[in-house]
Amino acid sequence: MRIDIITVLPELLESPFGASILKRAIDKGLVEVHMHNIRDYTDKSYNQVDDYQFGGGAGMVLMIEPIDKCISALKAERDYDEVIYMTPDGETLNQRIANGMSLLNNVIILCGHYKGVDQRIRDAFITREISIGDYVLSGGELGAAILCDAVIRLIPGVLNNETSALTDTFQDDLLAPPVYTRPSEYKGMKVPDVLLSGNFPKIEKWREDQAQKRTEERRPDLLK
Amino acid sequence: MRIDIITVLPELLESPFGASILKRAIDKGLVEVHMHNIRDYTDKSYNQVDDYQFGGGAGMVLMIEPIDKCISALKAERDYDEVIYMTPDGETLNQRIANGMSLLNNVIILCGHYKGVDQRIRDAFITREISIGDYVLSGGELGAAILCDAVIRLIPGVLNNETSALTDTFQDDLLAPPVYTRPSEYKGMKVPDVLLSGNFPKIEKWREDQAQKRTEERRPDLLK
Repeated sequence: MRIDIITVLPELLESPFGASILKRAIDKGLVEVHMHNIRDYTDKSYNQVDDYQFGGGAGMVLMIEPIDKCISALKAERDYDEVIYMTPDGETLNQRIANGMSLLNNVIILCGHYKGVDQRIRDAFITREISIGDYVLSGGELGAAILCDAVIRLIPGVLNNETSALTDTFQDDLLAPPVYTRPSEYKGMKVPDVLLSGNFPKIEKWREDQAQKRTEERRPDLLK
Repeated sequence: MRIDIITVLPELLESPFGASILKRAIDKGLVEVHMHNIRDYTDKSYNQVDDYQFGGGAGMVLMIEPIDKCISALKAERDYDEVIYMTPDGETLNQRIANGMSLLNNVIILCGHYKGVDQRIRDAFITREISIGDYVLSGGELGAAILCDAVIRLIPGVLNNETSALTDTFQDDLLAPPVYTRPSEYKGMKVPDVLLSGNFPKIEKWREDQAQKRTEERRPDLLK
């Protein structure tokens, strides 16, 4: 899988892709992530890439020309499955979408910043708009990092143990059951006996019950 | 506002807090963000902070003792309004929660990693559990960065122009209307005439109509 991220702030994304699972996936050659700075595609003085919005109002808007040039340059090199724009009014990301995206080959992710991008960019170049949730961020960069993390960890070989992703919350529309590790007692707080019993069918049953109970209590909407 | 982030991967969070609006808010003294590495609070060899889960199964679990020590050390220094755990089975973050949190003084954010944290940590120390959305990430670090971004940008003085946050998507339960910037025509794609008219009452009406229309089309749930 190849991901091209278009942004005015590539430096914001350095450490998320330079640590942990995303770095390991890149180092193993399971995914390529390329950053493209929109400022490299402008002819304007001071590398200007944004301007005031027509009609007045607070907040700068990213201009169409540099983004058109960047996307066009990438598309001239290869075909893309999706050109995604990170925006709070997009389709809300969920595990199903992440699962689907983990099967794609080439993806462009455009990050907005300030007040967003010129609407004509969305109309002309974007094939899918994704939101990571119902809240506003200062830019699309962290949203892009979240999307990449959610998707890349599902690519076979990225996690050390593939069963780890399959037992995650949401993969079966249930929240995950509680987990415990050593010591079995800490300041009077004990691990549930069943988990220490060695009776694996019983442990499995307990986990299923706990997952069901937690989902009913916290997210009954997932059970519908 | 002071935010203490507890994590096994502080290096993952360097660039999100070292760039753009979060950096400016820190530089201006409007928010303090401190990272605490859980590995600094363990007595075990190799700085061990996680272990296999009781009852078997894939994925490591963060142990209670180092996290207890870290949280206790912080609480000995000051009172905290919330001790938050980032987890996909928590309360789903939205703009209302971000607005409320922007009024707090001292907050601890605990990031899980691998399969999560020992349930006893959640039972004993955590006052609020927050999810940034219905998808699984490789750790809580990026979720913590998202929460901080959503909250910190709402603190007065962080954004250059305070009206910018007030006209964002979700602040009035409507998606934001389309935005356009120069040039007024690009490769045959034109900006809507009304935005070039200089007739501000008409522009305001157009924006309200567009916000309403976009919300009806994309997120009718917000209108209920």
